[in-house]
Amino acid sequence: MSIIVLGTVALDTVKTPCGKRKNILGGSAAHFAMAARLFTDVNLSAIIGSDFPKAYIDFLRRKGVILTSLIKAKGNTFKWEGRYQGDLNTAFTLKTELGVLSAFRPVISKEQRNIKYIFLANVDPDIQRHLLEKMHSPGLVGLDSMNYWINHKRNSLLRLLKRVDIYVANDQEARSLSGESNLIQAAKYLYRQGPKMILIKKGENGVLFFSDKFTPHLTKGAGFIFSLPAYPVEKVIDPTGAGDTFAGGFMGYLAKAKNTSEATLKKALVYGTVAASFNVEAFGLERTSQLTLKDLERRISEFRKCTLF
Amino acid sequence: MSIIVLGTVALDTVKTPCGKRKNILGGSAAHFAMAARLFTDVNLSAIIGSDFPKAYIDFLRRKGVILTSLIKAKGNTFKWEGRYQGDLNTAFTLKTELGVLSAFRPVISKEQRNIKYIFLANVDPDIQRHLLEKMHSPGLVGLDSMNYWINHKRNSLLRLLKRVDIYVANDQEARSLSGESNLIQAAKYLYRQGPKMILIKKGENGVLFFSDKFTPHLTKGAGFIFSLPAYPVEKVIDPTGAGDTFAGGFMGYLAKAKNTSEATLKKALVYGTVAASFNVEAFGLERTSQLTLKDLERRISEFRKCTLF
Repeated sequence: MSIIVLGTVALDTVKTPCGKRKNILGGSAAHFAMAARLFTDVNLSAIIGSDFPKAYIDFLRRKGVILTSLIKAKGNTFKWEGRYQGDLNTAFTLKTELGVLSAFRPVISKEQRNIKYIFLANVDPDIQRHLLEKMHSPGLVGLDSMNYWINHKRNSLLRLLKRVDIYVANDQEARSLSGESNLIQAAKYLYRQGPKMILIKKGENGVLFFSDKFTPHLTKGAGFIFSLPAYPVEKVIDPTGAGDTFAGGFMGYLAKAKNTSEATLKKALVYGTVAASFNVEAFGLERTSQLTLKDLERRISEFRKCTLF
Repeated sequence: MSIIVLGTVALDTVKTPCGKRKNILGGSAAHFAMAARLFTDVNLSAIIGSDFPKAYIDFLRRKGVILTSLIKAKGNTFKWEGRYQGDLNTAFTLKTELGVLSAFRPVISKEQRNIKYIFLANVDPDIQRHLLEKMHSPGLVGLDSMNYWINHKRNSLLRLLKRVDIYVANDQEARSLSGESNLIQAAKYLYRQGPKMILIKKGENGVLFFSDKFTPHLTKGAGFIFSLPAYPVEKVIDPTGAGDTFAGGFMGYLAKAKNTSEATLKKALVYGTVAASFNVEAFGLERTSQLTLKDLERRISEFRKCTLF
């Protein structure tokens, strides 16, 4: 099954203890696509400016990403500048230039309206809703957001949550949107807002996943739990986009499997985990753009050895 | 096989969002013993003051802890006062009164010198060395410490590391002692200091374990990895002593199994994980003192469901 991902395509400037890159290809939709393409056709809905390098468009196309709905507008491409220090777990944003992103309204083809697997990566929730309303028969809808929208467009975001199947958040965002400091209680709160699955990303500490599909062994009532550590990476170069890469691997696997059984969901989380582990091993899309399904599978078998008891 | 644990027996005053307890029984050795006693005989080497309630001594004895080497001295028992907020991951120490602990020199019996399983819970590294030197034929020696000793007695601690098999640290301590922010690199540094196994506790984010016993699938050279998430606990009441409880479950299982094969080590880590999850569900030793091996095993089977893929 094809996927459509809505999000940003950006020019990132990143500084980490391992080096610096200027205006490299980034953005939530680009990172998502680079992992999801390993499983299925990925349609990218995003906007770029007139300054966007043609080489990057060629690169995305070469990687098999479908660019029919990549809108080119007059003005500058969305730019993000940030740096990481110490344990590289937190990005410090130095600059954000929205550029053409501030006037973005997704436009997709008639054909694309029939796509069943939809991922609304981090952009303004009103833009996310805009795309979702265009879709004819959503099968599985995932949603990511960020603290900025939780603080500034909380109501839009909560309304949107009622219409999605999977809410993807990092631990900070889950705590902030729910007002709960315990992640299980946070997930239960978020579950009550609508999504049947809550995926909490904890960076180097792995993921917690809650779904009403699982046997109720841990918690009474809504939401049951799956917990995975991260794949241990010794040399983290640049964590930018790791969460989107995770989501891409996760949704990509689900779109390929065409079901959301407990076993499939767990497998999808494992694919997301190892995809993200490759992402952090190089700047931007350097490593994930070289990835094959075989690489993922090889690392999954290593991951098994270091987590199964 | 019997275990001897050296550490503190304390009177804790704890405030968490769930309530407050004053002068409850605590300390690293007490928490360790309460978990380890489920697997084997636990000898406790610690010091208490003349103010120490007889009821607590009776309680420890009733739980089967061997108190031959619990020294009673003139003066006050070691007291710790702390509080937790928000996600309850960090303890804020409000007060520490060393009392008799400042003059503690472990005294053990002739028989106890022959014990093979030794755990040096958090006290001054010079006191830890003092006990270790009394032991006739150490079989498996575990060591825990804390930031205070890393900062103030770094050399004593590093000398001691050469003589232990397992170094147990939380992520902060591992980073601080090694100077490495990446935990795998931190573990490799610590491994080079002597211990053949490094156990890094990450609180609600589980544990990372490094051992030269494991097949070298992840890292070249020293130290191979096992990673476990924590057992997801919805209602954390008081995390005090969770790390010591973990160590007690871990070492207790190893002492019972009498080997350190890869499978045994992994199992021991799982027992430590679930033991710690019970500890945080009540104040002090309230929950762990009621624990049975069956409780642990039941929770392990739940843990399996929410971590295995």
